[in-house]
Amino acid sequence: MKTDARRRHDPTVRGFASDNYAGAHPEILAALALANGGHQVAYGEDDYTDHLQRIMHSHFGAGAEAFPVFNGTGANVTALQALTDRWGAVICAESAHINVDEGGAPERMGGLKLLTVPTPDGKLTPELIDRQAFGWDDEHRAMPQVVSITQNTELGTVYTVDEIRAIVAHAHGHGMKVHLDGARIANAAASLDVPMRAFTNAAGVDVISFGGTKNGMLFGEAVVVLNPDAVSHMKHLRKLSMQLASKMRFVSVQFEALLAKDLWLRNARHSNAMAQRLAEGVRAVDGVEILHSVQANAVFARLPHEVSRRLQERFRFYFWDEAAGDVRWMCSFDTAEDDVDAFVQALKEEMAR
Amino acid sequence: MKTDARRRHDPTVRGFASDNYAGAHPEILAALALANGGHQVAYGEDDYTDHLQRIMHSHFGAGAEAFPVFNGTGANVTALQALTDRWGAVICAESAHINVDEGGAPERMGGLKLLTVPTPDGKLTPELIDRQAFGWDDEHRAMPQVVSITQNTELGTVYTVDEIRAIVAHAHGHGMKVHLDGARIANAAASLDVPMRAFTNAAGVDVISFGGTKNGMLFGEAVVVLNPDAVSHMKHLRKLSMQLASKMRFVSVQFEALLAKDLWLRNARHSNAMAQRLAEGVRAVDGVEILHSVQANAVFARLPHEVSRRLQERFRFYFWDEAAGDVRWMCSFDTAEDDVDAFVQALKEEMAR
Amino acid sequence: MKTDARRRHDPTVRGFASDNYAGAHPEILAALALANGGHQVAYGEDDYTDHLQRIMHSHFGAGAEAFPVFNGTGANVTALQALTDRWGAVICAESAHINVDEGGAPERMGGLKLLTVPTPDGKLTPELIDRQAFGWDDEHRAMPQVVSITQNTELGTVYTVDEIRAIVAHAHGHGMKVHLDGARIANAAASLDVPMRAFTNAAGVDVISFGGTKNGMLFGEAVVVLNPDAVSHMKHLRKLSMQLASKMRFVSVQFEALLAKDLWLRNARHSNAMAQRLAEGVRAVDGVEILHSVQANAVFARLPHEVSRRLQERFRFYFWDEAAGDVRWMCSFDTAEDDVDAFVQALKEEMAR
Amino acid sequence: MKTDARRRHDPTVRGFASDNYAGAHPEILAALALANGGHQVAYGEDDYTDHLQRIMHSHFGAGAEAFPVFNGTGANVTALQALTDRWGAVICAESAHINVDEGGAPERMGGLKLLTVPTPDGKLTPELIDRQAFGWDDEHRAMPQVVSITQNTELGTVYTVDEIRAIVAHAHGHGMKVHLDGARIANAAASLDVPMRAFTNAAGVDVISFGGTKNGMLFGEAVVVLNPDAVSHMKHLRKLSMQLASKMRFVSVQFEALLAKDLWLRNARHSNAMAQRLAEGVRAVDGVEILHSVQANAVFARLPHEVSRRLQERFRFYFWDEAAGDVRWMCSFDTAEDDVDAFVQALKEEMAR
Repeated sequence: MKTDARRRHDPTVRGFASDNYAGAHPEILAALALANGGHQVAYGEDDYTDHLQRIMHSHFGAGAEAFPVFNGTGANVTALQALTDRWGAVICAESAHINVDEGGAPERMGGLKLLTVPTPDGKLTPELIDRQAFGWDDEHRAMPQVVSITQNTELGTVYTVDEIRAIVAHAHGHGMKVHLDGARIANAAASLDVPMRAFTNAAGVDVISFGGTKNGMLFGEAVVVLNPDAVSHMKHLRKLSMQLASKMRFVSVQFEALLAKDLWLRNARHSNAMAQRLAEGVRAVDGVEILHSVQANAVFARLPHEVSRRLQERFRFYFWDEAAGDVRWMCSFDTAEDDVDAFVQALKEEMAR
Repeated sequence: MKTDARRRHDPTVRGFASDNYAGAHPEILAALALANGGHQVAYGEDDYTDHLQRIMHSHFGAGAEAFPVFNGTGANVTALQALTDRWGAVICAESAHINVDEGGAPERMGGLKLLTVPTPDGKLTPELIDRQAFGWDDEHRAMPQVVSITQNTELGTVYTVDEIRAIVAHAHGHGMKVHLDGARIANAAASLDVPMRAFTNAAGVDVISFGGTKNGMLFGEAVVVLNPDAVSHMKHLRKLSMQLASKMRFVSVQFEALLAKDLWLRNARHSNAMAQRLAEGVRAVDGVEILHSVQANAVFARLPHEVSRRLQERFRFYFWDEAAGDVRWMCSFDTAEDDVDAFVQALKEEMAR
Repeated sequence: MKTDARRRHDPTVRGFASDNYAGAHPEILAALALANGGHQVAYGEDDYTDHLQRIMHSHFGAGAEAFPVFNGTGANVTALQALTDRWGAVICAESAHINVDEGGAPERMGGLKLLTVPTPDGKLTPELIDRQAFGWDDEHRAMPQVVSITQNTELGTVYTVDEIRAIVAHAHGHGMKVHLDGARIANAAASLDVPMRAFTNAAGVDVISFGGTKNGMLFGEAVVVLNPDAVSHMKHLRKLSMQLASKMRFVSVQFEALLAKDLWLRNARHSNAMAQRLAEGVRAVDGVEILHSVQANAVFARLPHEVSRRLQERFRFYFWDEAAGDVRWMCSFDTAEDDVDAFVQALKEEMAR
Repeated sequence: MKTDARRRHDPTVRGFASDNYAGAHPEILAALALANGGHQVAYGEDDYTDHLQRIMHSHFGAGAEAFPVFNGTGANVTALQALTDRWGAVICAESAHINVDEGGAPERMGGLKLLTVPTPDGKLTPELIDRQAFGWDDEHRAMPQVVSITQNTELGTVYTVDEIRAIVAHAHGHGMKVHLDGARIANAAASLDVPMRAFTNAAGVDVISFGGTKNGMLFGEAVVVLNPDAVSHMKHLRKLSMQLASKMRFVSVQFEALLAKDLWLRNARHSNAMAQRLAEGVRAVDGVEILHSVQANAVFARLPHEVSRRLQERFRFYFWDEAAGDVRWMCSFDTAEDDVDAFVQALKEEMAR
């Protein structure tokens, strides 16, 4: 097909900087073409968004409802507004994406107060939650109404089903709702080898930010409401949060391509496996320490700063804590075994210099 | 290419409800495929977004800078925040999209006060602006800092170059900036038969919300800064406004396909021409009144309510003012001459019943 | 009593600029001294705030609850937040204080969208409300959830009891709540010669912003909740809206001095009577037109611009619409008959020059 | 003077709960009477607010400008908005009042992101600031633009002049402004035995929240701008933040009574001295541990929980950390030596039971 655009990059180059450096899975692109042509009602009353509900039911049960949005920050801020009153606050890990990586959008756009807790591994526990879970009657304090956890976490660790159950029981016991930031929910399911339902609605989670982009979509996430009693007027909230896509069919059909069968799981298993392969390779290199349990598609490591600097000239990746020499290596659905092996080889070479 | 998604709609069915009921132009889809594969830096530091700047320069001059965002509300709220202080307000037509169609996002998300003025045809004038342009030193009043106009307007009318020049001169004379909501900027350029530059930076406009979705893109708009002195830290504002796409290459390459040569103009000319054909056909039908000057891709008409109701069972479109019997018929890049003719024929039949 | 402060103004000089140019009624000051001394629980759990509830019950019935705040903007923004969801909007007259005189605080601080209606005399009606009362299911529109009226209005007119009943019935019929901005509620009651209850909870109003400052208090207003089912967590909302006084006893005791017996009514009757005296005097002056029905303590008039200018050098007052030559003359609890007579004499002199 | 209000409390009862349980100093009340009577321009253009500027100059130099507001939260949120862009963030101690005691107003009303740091004693240092002072170019992070310190701190400790100098130098070196929350600024000056200027503008602080209420005023605080280049449009910000008093003369004259001569210092020295007397008495009681250095008017102590509970039945005070058994005892301008002695005696008795 003709187009005036031109290819401007080398599609064979891949790095370890982020799972959203990757493009879209070819099956996702193919789905877009299927949904194209003719007129479909805008703003979510199209046939693809309608069908998406059925797909979500197959994963999360008949009570689930999906609200496609544009990006992760949008999903989180929309979901958290839905779960809080104007006086509400959200308990989360200090390392949570909503706290450190969203440019203050939860506070500025959502009017939300975040009550943060330091964690060793990115994971909250009932005990950690209790450091902020108090003062419901005290008007001087933003009222804790939601516990927000990230699965898998920003540190590449994965909550077990039982850990999430315990958090939910604790939160619900205090009258708080539970939000799960699932930007990498598929990686967590693949890691635990359970259906996504097992650690979400089966565990009592109320609302999910469901991630598509990092798992091979072009763009698009969804707020998935598991407990309809926990929220209301999601459509209004999505619109006023600037997250309502006009041609929503193109978000929904991507989710269909991802979730109708097993593409979501294939992609997630693959990126997780690549992280395992990477961790294995790294463990064989003296002087490089792996920092957290490698449970999903991220490897955190500590190595000499100048080695990282040299290595970054060969492969793109980020420092996590530059002062400490900590780096993050992410694998994605399109990471090849050869990519990993070449990277480990390069690491070896740079360590040896 | 394999995909688990399935076609769920009839791609031959088109109506007159909205230009975002249409899908994406095939050349846009083709561009997505070109940009896919390999890794590209996320969040806008990719090669496609880099190249987009050069394309925008060709349209708007070397001083222009484009900030791709997700949707029109996002573009408007980001742009207007950039142009205002915390105490600033925005003068706009009562019928402006930012006032009536964005779920209150400018107020809630942007913290903006809109100072509205009723207009006969959706167009502001220096005189109309003066109804709200006062009180800059009065702390009891939100300070007018921006005039926001829509080109073409929500009523399908188009400002002439001179009209915009006069508005800009007036606004600048009062120390106010000018924002142009260009959700249908291409239709305006096609209607006026001038380059987009003629009624934007050549006329002194400071910042544009540049529309892509309604003109054949899958999704995506851009804030285009024409006067760099008018704003700062656009990247921060875009991020905190939840409008930062991770895989931005896929927005930028769509703009490249649209703007590198003339797809934007072909699409706009076509939808405008279809509106003219439609207006001509409608004028021949007794009892149907065309309400505004048909200058772009919209036709507003007044006809008996029950006729509209019956017609809506055959073709999708919206009431504009149901009590008055006013309807809006929109043409889009994919409206076929046959669609128009069939619609006019149906209108005739329903009027005759 | 010793103090290092000194008197810096002439306490015999009074004008017609605003009822908040006046100081505090001496009985109010006396009340402050009574409440002073010893320790009282801060933030509203003191004996005076407790007793204030009983006083409010005597005026508004046993279901009423008062939440003292600092000022009128604070009262309005707190009340309107309490009555709306995040997606809610407020229908009000274009001339409403919340729309034109609060620096955009409702939008910026409350996240509220105001849906305004032009009115001839500052008063809404069911018909006028209907211009904005629609679209509850439409997520593109901020949802009308509250009708806010001002009693008496910013134009010095007073709603009859029946007019408010009709508005409430209409609003409630649409599922909307009714807020009454009572910055001058006492003047309205005095004007109608009915208890305040007659046009508030007896008429179905849900929440009042109860004005104290303009009627002789030093500072202080209250949100008075008449329908407890209409709101929740008022204390939290007041705190986060920066309206929680630490030494609240000093607000509450002022209200006690005002409302325990009849000071509120004496003050209001007096300022209303002064406005009547003023209007009478003005009517006898050729070339000066009284603009609205003089029903409370404000007189609006139209006279030659240069006469106003000269008169302003002798008595302080404001233009209302300088271009039209419209001025506003306000009487207050401390306006003396001699003040009025001197002012009318001066007006005559300036008109005669 | 007649009033319909009645005394409802015992003015001889005082406790150790908070310095805002106290009433107003009699000299403050006397000042109100002086400023009463006649008409004065509302909203801050009165003679008392004008004179207040000269008084503030005598304390802070000719460049200082005071903006009276209602309360501490209002002062802080107004000041911090003035010092930040929409994308800005504020670095503060985890224990800062703005973080833990303002109901989320900075986030919700100011749209501010707080970047908090745990501190041992409520005091920031350059090193502690550095834990959050990074990422200015990173749009994913709210941009650190202000360091906010509290003097004296919420834990009763006092920054030395040199400590504040070092913080300011560090903050300014990073392009950040410095805000000082001076809710108890007089106690700090009394503790350090230096003029307030020494640790504010002489040390480079940009803007102060100046506390009056806790030091004997009825109500009222002020934002004091020391560095005019650091802010703009303070009047607009104060208004939209709902902190503009109509009868401002009554705030300003209280400040005059406090600051014209030495009432502020007498009050502060007295409450500090009472805290020293209390600390001394407590140190003589076995089993009670004083927790922080007693440098101002607060004493923090740890004692058996049940002892605190019994003691609270005799004197009002608060737990600070109930789980740990930590309590806070505050002295105020009206705390008498006998109050302290009686309290220590009661403590001894309850410890002995």
